[in-house]
Amino acid sequence: MEFKQVLIVRTDLEMGKGKISAQCAHASVLAFEKVQQKHAEWINEWKKNGMEKIVLKVDSKKELLEWFERLKKKFPTVLIKDAGRTQIAPGEPTCIGVGPAPENEIDEHTKELKLL
Amino acid sequence: MEFKQVLIVRTDLEMGKGKISAQCAHASVLAFEKVQQKHAEWINEWKKNGMEKIVLKVDSKKELLEWFERLKKKFPTVLIKDAGRTQIAPGEPTCIGVGPAPENEIDEHTKELKLL
Repeated sequence: MEFKQVLIVRTDLEMGKGKISAQCAHASVLAFEKVQQKHAEWINEWKKNGMEKIVLKVDSKKELLEWFERLKKKFPTVLIKDAGRTQIAPGEPTCIGVGPAPENEIDEHTKELKLL
Repeated sequence: MEFKQVLIVRTDLEMGKGKISAQCAHASVLAFEKVQQKHAEWINEWKKNGMEKIVLKVDSKKELLEWFERLKKKFPTVLIKDAGRTQIAPGEPTCIGVGPAPENEIDEHTKELKLL
């Protein structure tokens, strides 16, 4: 079985490249840690596959929170809120990290989202 | 003591936002894991500080590799090479992940680099 991690980012905040990258890195590490604690074997499988990850987008806070509620029922999922040091307000949700989890299931549940 | 993670990305590859974010996430997770194995207490301190991270830039492969050689002597550091599925050639180095490590030291050694 192949494993994949999905990161979902808000585009409506108009974050710069550096900011988006930092938020995605944050989501990736926390979702990784969550999976490490619950399904350590998934991490090993994910590594064999080059730690595949894709970055998808939503265009509002509402959508991001809906996706978070939906995905956390199925997969190890984290919601990232910005520390607010730069660009955007403290506590503003910016992105979601999901998995790594089995690729077929994660694709099935996120297929309607577009690539960032 | 405060801790910070630094990600350094090549701009000359002209990667899109999603691609840069995925490469940075990759660097962040692998550097995190390296620190977790060697200095688990740094991870705890880093978390207390909101997992601070910044994304810096270089504009060539040569520069990226020079920074990797320099920084890996001082800090837990990883070099990311692209899997080559999209946009760029397989094995092309794209970015570096450094730490988390003590903020004053990491700042001292990377201060000449600009924010992405």
